[in-house]
Amino acid sequence: MDKLLYGVAYYDEYMPYDRLDQDIRMMKEAGINVVRIADSTWGTYEPQNGVFDFSSVDKVLTGMYLAGIRVIVATPTYAIPTWMAKEHPEILTITTKGKAQYGPRQNMDITNPTYLFYAERIIRELIGFVHDHPAVIGYQTDNETKHYDTAGPNVQLLFVKYMREMYGTLDNINKRFGLDYWSNRINAWEDFPSVIGTINGSLGAEFAKFQRKLVTNFLAWQVSIVNEYKRPGQFVTQNFDFEWRGYSYGVQPAVNHFEASKPFDIAGVDIYHPSQDELTGIEISFGGDIGRSLKRRNYLVVETEAQAFPQWTPYPGQLRLQAFSHLASGADMVAYWHWHSIHNSFETYWKGVLSHDFEPNPVYEEAKTIGRDFDRLSPDLIHLRKSNRVAVIVSNESLTALEWFKLPGDKLYNDVVRWMYDELYKLNVECDFIQPSFDRLDDYQLIVVPVLYAAPDEELERLNGFVRNGGHVVYTFKSGFADEIVKVRTTHQPGIINEACGIYYSMFIEPENVRLKDDPFGVGEEANTVETWMELITPITAEVLAYYDHPYWGKYAAVTRNHYGRGTATYIGCMTSAAIVNRILKGAVQMAGLWGDNQELAFPIIVKTGINAAGRTIRYYFNYSGYPVTARYPHTAGRELLSDSLVFQGQTLEIEPWGFRIVMAAPTPDIQH
Amino acid sequence: MDKLLYGVAYYDEYMPYDRLDQDIRMMKEAGINVVRIADSTWGTYEPQNGVFDFSSVDKVLTGMYLAGIRVIVATPTYAIPTWMAKEHPEILTITTKGKAQYGPRQNMDITNPTYLFYAERIIRELIGFVHDHPAVIGYQTDNETKHYDTAGPNVQLLFVKYMREMYGTLDNINKRFGLDYWSNRINAWEDFPSVIGTINGSLGAEFAKFQRKLVTNFLAWQVSIVNEYKRPGQFVTQNFDFEWRGYSYGVQPAVNHFEASKPFDIAGVDIYHPSQDELTGIEISFGGDIGRSLKRRNYLVVETEAQAFPQWTPYPGQLRLQAFSHLASGADMVAYWHWHSIHNSFETYWKGVLSHDFEPNPVYEEAKTIGRDFDRLSPDLIHLRKSNRVAVIVSNESLTALEWFKLPGDKLYNDVVRWMYDELYKLNVECDFIQPSFDRLDDYQLIVVPVLYAAPDEELERLNGFVRNGGHVVYTFKSGFADEIVKVRTTHQPGIINEACGIYYSMFIEPENVRLKDDPFGVGEEANTVETWMELITPITAEVLAYYDHPYWGKYAAVTRNHYGRGTATYIGCMTSAAIVNRILKGAVQMAGLWGDNQELAFPIIVKTGINAAGRTIRYYFNYSGYPVTARYPHTAGRELLSDSLVFQGQTLEIEPWGFRIVMAAPTPDIQH
Amino acid sequence: MDKLLYGVAYYDEYMPYDRLDQDIRMMKEAGINVVRIADSTWGTYEPQNGVFDFSSVDKVLTGMYLAGIRVIVATPTYAIPTWMAKEHPEILTITTKGKAQYGPRQNMDITNPTYLFYAERIIRELIGFVHDHPAVIGYQTDNETKHYDTAGPNVQLLFVKYMREMYGTLDNINKRFGLDYWSNRINAWEDFPSVIGTINGSLGAEFAKFQRKLVTNFLAWQVSIVNEYKRPGQFVTQNFDFEWRGYSYGVQPAVNHFEASKPFDIAGVDIYHPSQDELTGIEISFGGDIGRSLKRRNYLVVETEAQAFPQWTPYPGQLRLQAFSHLASGADMVAYWHWHSIHNSFETYWKGVLSHDFEPNPVYEEAKTIGRDFDRLSPDLIHLRKSNRVAVIVSNESLTALEWFKLPGDKLYNDVVRWMYDELYKLNVECDFIQPSFDRLDDYQLIVVPVLYAAPDEELERLNGFVRNGGHVVYTFKSGFADEIVKVRTTHQPGIINEACGIYYSMFIEPENVRLKDDPFGVGEEANTVETWMELITPITAEVLAYYDHPYWGKYAAVTRNHYGRGTATYIGCMTSAAIVNRILKGAVQMAGLWGDNQELAFPIIVKTGINAAGRTIRYYFNYSGYPVTARYPHTAGRELLSDSLVFQGQTLEIEPWGFRIVMAAPTPDIQH
Repeated sequence: MDKLLYGVAYYDEYMPYDRLDQDIRMMKEAGINVVRIADSTWGTYEPQNGVFDFSSVDKVLTGMYLAGIRVIVATPTYAIPTWMAKEHPEILTITTKGKAQYGPRQNMDITNPTYLFYAERIIRELIGFVHDHPAVIGYQTDNETKHYDTAGPNVQLLFVKYMREMYGTLDNINKRFGLDYWSNRINAWEDFPSVIGTINGSLGAEFAKFQRKLVTNFLAWQVSIVNEYKRPGQFVTQNFDFEWRGYSYGVQPAVNHFEASKPFDIAGVDIYHPSQDELTGIEISFGGDIGRSLKRRNYLVVETEAQAFPQWTPYPGQLRLQAFSHLASGADMVAYWHWHSIHNSFETYWKGVLSHDFEPNPVYEEAKTIGRDFDRLSPDLIHLRKSNRVAVIVSNESLTALEWFKLPGDKLYNDVVRWMYDELYKLNVECDFIQPSFDRLDDYQLIVVPVLYAAPDEELERLNGFVRNGGHVVYTFKSGFADEIVKVRTTHQPGIINEACGIYYSMFIEPENVRLKDDPFGVGEEANTVETWMELITPITAEVLAYYDHPYWGKYAAVTRNHYGRGTATYIGCMTSAAIVNRILKGAVQMAGLWGDNQELAFPIIVKTGINAAGRTIRYYFNYSGYPVTARYPHTAGRELLSDSLVFQGQTLEIEPWGFRIVMAAPTPDIQH
Repeated sequence: MDKLLYGVAYYDEYMPYDRLDQDIRMMKEAGINVVRIADSTWGTYEPQNGVFDFSSVDKVLTGMYLAGIRVIVATPTYAIPTWMAKEHPEILTITTKGKAQYGPRQNMDITNPTYLFYAERIIRELIGFVHDHPAVIGYQTDNETKHYDTAGPNVQLLFVKYMREMYGTLDNINKRFGLDYWSNRINAWEDFPSVIGTINGSLGAEFAKFQRKLVTNFLAWQVSIVNEYKRPGQFVTQNFDFEWRGYSYGVQPAVNHFEASKPFDIAGVDIYHPSQDELTGIEISFGGDIGRSLKRRNYLVVETEAQAFPQWTPYPGQLRLQAFSHLASGADMVAYWHWHSIHNSFETYWKGVLSHDFEPNPVYEEAKTIGRDFDRLSPDLIHLRKSNRVAVIVSNESLTALEWFKLPGDKLYNDVVRWMYDELYKLNVECDFIQPSFDRLDDYQLIVVPVLYAAPDEELERLNGFVRNGGHVVYTFKSGFADEIVKVRTTHQPGIINEACGIYYSMFIEPENVRLKDDPFGVGEEANTVETWMELITPITAEVLAYYDHPYWGKYAAVTRNHYGRGTATYIGCMTSAAIVNRILKGAVQMAGLWGDNQELAFPIIVKTGINAAGRTIRYYFNYSGYPVTARYPHTAGRELLSDSLVFQGQTLEIEPWGFRIVMAAPTPDIQH
Repeated sequence: MDKLLYGVAYYDEYMPYDRLDQDIRMMKEAGINVVRIADSTWGTYEPQNGVFDFSSVDKVLTGMYLAGIRVIVATPTYAIPTWMAKEHPEILTITTKGKAQYGPRQNMDITNPTYLFYAERIIRELIGFVHDHPAVIGYQTDNETKHYDTAGPNVQLLFVKYMREMYGTLDNINKRFGLDYWSNRINAWEDFPSVIGTINGSLGAEFAKFQRKLVTNFLAWQVSIVNEYKRPGQFVTQNFDFEWRGYSYGVQPAVNHFEASKPFDIAGVDIYHPSQDELTGIEISFGGDIGRSLKRRNYLVVETEAQAFPQWTPYPGQLRLQAFSHLASGADMVAYWHWHSIHNSFETYWKGVLSHDFEPNPVYEEAKTIGRDFDRLSPDLIHLRKSNRVAVIVSNESLTALEWFKLPGDKLYNDVVRWMYDELYKLNVECDFIQPSFDRLDDYQLIVVPVLYAAPDEELERLNGFVRNGGHVVYTFKSGFADEIVKVRTTHQPGIINEACGIYYSMFIEPENVRLKDDPFGVGEEANTVETWMELITPITAEVLAYYDHPYWGKYAAVTRNHYGRGTATYIGCMTSAAIVNRILKGAVQMAGLWGDNQELAFPIIVKTGINAAGRTIRYYFNYSGYPVTARYPHTAGRELLSDSLVFQGQTLEIEPWGFRIVMAAPTPDIQH
């Protein structure tokens, strides 16, 4: 990839009338230089079993090529044709909720061999058809792939074999998974019940892990096929999506992104986020940090919103702010879903760059400025590298475990992750995401660990070692509580990490009217709140940063910090207000010696930095608010790229509402974060 | 029909002991002159397959006849006997929610031939048995008939044939319904999937239309059978019910009342409404205006409430107010569901005129006064004719489309209809309902068009023509957006009607903290609100009646009015408070030259007028409140019918809480509205 | 049983490692003298069909015996093994919601002969194995047995036979159950439809009664088997649980506890209740009063909470307060579910006496004090007898009927029961529970009757007789409304009891903004509220205690009292605030001559009394609050047992937060309540 990609998803097949030439002309005007095609239209390409028709693909490839627009071709396997469902109803997945029906996408059993046979054939036919076309720069396998909770009899059988492979004997399984409970003991392999009805959280979580493995396998299999056709210079990516709460909220429960991204050349993500007054940039940063962390290099934003929902239609300036925010997190491509708004079916109110009338509109006009600037600034902004010293540990296993053992108020894993991540973001502390199995912890100085509920001993011990070696960790409540199969530890809590944390607890409470004694973090009465969960902590060697304010639990610690070896471990035994966790994280950042100029600014001023391909430091200053802000530029002089003007050290940057500045440092990059 | 009918539903079959004579005596005392029977008791009449027992019918007919009470006999087909469900379980309908169970009424597939065979037989047996009886004045086919979401394999097959008949080729269907989307393309008729799982709103809406057609066909078939038996002077009616939100709320989604009512001699409706402090008369008026509009003549209120639910037990005076309100809308019959409260089963707490102890009670006592007055005033009040100059367009197609593409806050079609209708009611602007296909628009001067989302070009063009010819229209947001198969128009929005409206928009928003700039309708800060939906309107030739008050959307228009030809088109681009739409409608009424004396009064004083059989104007003045009100009578002198006293021009009518007056004009009717 | 039992449920099978000896040592230290075992682990005891392994039972019995800890052995039949579900999937019950899945407990059809065959075999094997062991003092059959809504075809067939046996002919059934309604009439036995889909409340309620009978039969059958093995001195009990609303709330809908407890030697219950600031003791008292009333003698608390949920972790002192509260209600055993917290599966967050780390913790430490005191005070506190003069009538039939015909706001039967019971509790009025069929009403002076909706004539007439003979009754609204098959009476309401109540009504309302006129009970404006339901009562001979305050319903009575024979009947026609019903009950208690010293105290000071085995009066004074309270001791001198100190008449007892005192009267017991 030699330049920043600015793209859209394009569906010639959906067009109410033939308008490819007009679209290409309008795209060119907007600086669109890449389109993604073909991800949803298997039924058009294979109208009958074994009959193929790639004429719309051909037409688009040719049109785009002639216009100098590049194309990413997706395998269309996530939405099956009508004839296939009719001929082979067994392809429709059986989930815990019953048999899927034809109509939606993502309704097939991704382990079904009939489906796999057809999927392989269309992939070979389509990719074989396009791979030599000069317009094609890369491929996407499938789309937003997940396991769709496939759990039918065949999958149950696979799971039994998986369990035998993983755990050897039923005796071992019965013991580790606690199956004696409620008579769930399995004493013969053929007695293994479907886990659809299981009430055993360990078994249920293991099945979820197994289902995620099905996704990893399925995607690797697709990549292996596409790789047979891939020409030099072409890439294969995926479009990973996040936990969906009406927008991209957090870690994806149904896919282990770290595992699944391995076979791909480059990671791709889709990021959708609230807008208008609710636009904060957090999801852009969060999704970007995940995307960049997957392969620890630049990534593609394969989909993000143009107009989208009525409540997301961007205010003037916001589309532009968003686009550069993606770059600032390390994206090399920003692409909209989608070019034109769809006139029928389901996503009619998910509007594209163009409205249904295909006319230029304010969003399209703003896109034009982005396209121009992307083109102009591409050499300076592409391939931004980061070397963050802070990492956040995320864990699919803990996520699943928390679905089985929900926090009060039905709070989930990602609520805790976001509770911490959002404050790091607001403090302008950039971070990577790592899995708990990541073995180069010493790359970092501070590791933030939200609710690492289910983890094997060695991972927790590695974290202890990290602290011993001078690292700093911030843990939340419930970390270390259970092992990797969600069996609660029988040792002191927090399990294993209690060594580094220097604390002990065996009781926990759902707080009611609980505060922190004497407002130790100085957040004011309103914000001095504890909710959802509180552990009754007894410090062993730890310093107590906060006690609970409560007639009976007041003798227990809420937040502690322990010096252990050459580092420190901070433990947050309760869920607090955002203000409190902000202060705790600030303290940890300072303790780790990472407090710098960027942290002197704070949300709504967001600073993102990195080193560009030429080795020069790029600093983005974003204003995520509807009012103008000013920020002092504390570094040695640089050049503001948008205005192409000099910025002197100490100069005040004035940033308009929803605006931003990009400062490129002088040739010798300083070392900073 | 020669006199006002005052009736009850009567179920001798449900009686805990034989009390027909007592009931008839009490009915006579209350002035009940008609009963409806037989609609729910097929199992009693045909206790075993082919064994018939009409003894209870016979007994009731004879008893009523001797007492001079007339009888409407219903075909009992909406609740099937136990033996039929056991013998032919395939009769139980398959819906999107699965297979229906035996127990409730309305659980059968109305297309099932076995059911139709049995239904035809019981109709012929029952109607054959009763048609010569002198007590019988008419028939009701079935009851509250709907399609019950029948969607099993046989219905799916019928739908495929329907689609072929309607749209010819799959190519055409694929194109118009946008089936390429998510690989839903159908390339062979035998691949046509069940639409139970469809996510395609166009296809889903078409299936709903098809299901409504099944109801039309089913009722027409019943009528054709009954007509074979009908004697001269007898009529056939149906009991159409409305969208149910705990009471009769709006347009019925599952039946096209206009189509379905065609074969009937007279339209019948059931109207249930809130009561006590929540009694407004709106539902009586709404259901009445629909009922009257179906065949554009008088109608029957086949069911309404006596005591009904605990929260509906009427305050003293309310039963009487309600009864005359029905007459004032054009009803020729008011009948209660039901005579006696039921002692077992399901509707035990839907109380009738009598409580479970069959004793006279306050409601029964009030019914007696109604019966007396109906009898006395029948010659003056029966067959009230209206010639309204205002019409409201309602559309089943738009209703269904809005179920697929819901407004924010899950607002539905009828919410918008009622938002406008309620204000017309409160302004004392009487109106008819018409379908968008109605081709005599020039009968009206003002047409109100709530959210006409899905409509063919010609209907919108006819509305343009109506304005051009001097008519006035008030449109809401989203009108004209999609064609008749819910495909969004690719032209400028609002589609086609933009010509008459003189505006353009391509973006829309879910409003948050949005008001209208400078309170242009003078409703005060509290009421100056915009919610649910707002379109960002650019006026082309239109005058802007209101702009949005918002930092970014403030340059767009919210409400516009355009002079087009000899008329005007008002366009409301957002959902506003009731107060605002009230003012907009008031303006349109004035613009149409329809503001008159009745509009000088307003809710809780409700005025309804019409011309009686003798050609004299009848004016009802209702007080829908718990306090006394006064209203100036501005017309030439007339006679107040309840008190049989003169009313002079300019006289002040004093109306007690929940009371009313009826003034009959002097012999020469003045022309007014 | 020769001493107070202090126990835990113990599951050696669930242990993550072998720690029986440690557990026994810790139990001994805590004074635990009984464990219940084996209720949930069929799969461990019968790992394959017909293969038995009671080694864990053997080990525990031996260990406990050597430590002097007694054992109650449960039949493990409420959770079936995996092999059984696999071999005989037909065992899994079919309910109104479909077929049960393997995984949870209580998923089997308790009428299935295959299940019964296996259940009988494991009972015989297990009880045969343990019955001679000297550690075993008793048995529990199954656990928290209910019918699990079993409603499959075989159960439907049994129901038809039951109906024929109960009601003889279909003519009778059709008439009494009102089956003509909606064509539900049954004219041949083979047409009898599954009642899964029925909308007939009478039939539905009868099916629920039949289902409860299945439970009675199933438990009697288990007892009969266990009795074959029971040695002299051993007992058989059950663990009856209550309506579950996150804790033990009220009468159990799925079991008739009175019927089902007959074959048992002693009644057992499980009682779970809110804690921390929400600890009131009401559920302990309610469950205890039910438990004691079942066999009209002492009972066992087979399960209650130690730490349990995070929101239930007891404050210091609460565990102790709870334990003695059970004794004060007549329990002879208090046992925790469970000893240790479970490390896997489902109930991981239902913590036992020990946390997951098996270490001593504050709750365990407090348990030690309880164990010591139980042991020391056992001779004085065991076998407490009560002779209450107040009874509350509870009725499964009325409960079910109210599920069919819900009160507004979805209030259920137990809401009304608790509305009254809670106030009796707060007034320190101790009471028994009786069924409406109880025929020794004259044992009582005051009978409280919450919403006795469905009852046969003779039971209501017996209540009339009770009043005539000098008894006092307090009825609520809806009592007497329907007969035993939920057919509304055709006579005056309230049916039959109107004779004793001297009132009449035929209309009822859902109150909105209704109060009682002139605050007749002096509760202040805030508390002077009427909600949910109000009957429009006309007094015949009754005195009106309160009228409604409402513009239209103000002429009707809300609360009445009637002198009838030598007693009085109070009728509460509406649901009021707690404060109002408190005053009404207080008045009734006074009228019955039962107002005494205990009633001069009130919640949070709770007084419970009884006569111990030595014939001496025991008086418990509990402080159910977080602040210290004082109570005057008005009786002749006694001895405070905890402190072993004298208490003089008129002395002030000072009771610490969540504390209590136990005073044993001097040898000659005074008669009091």
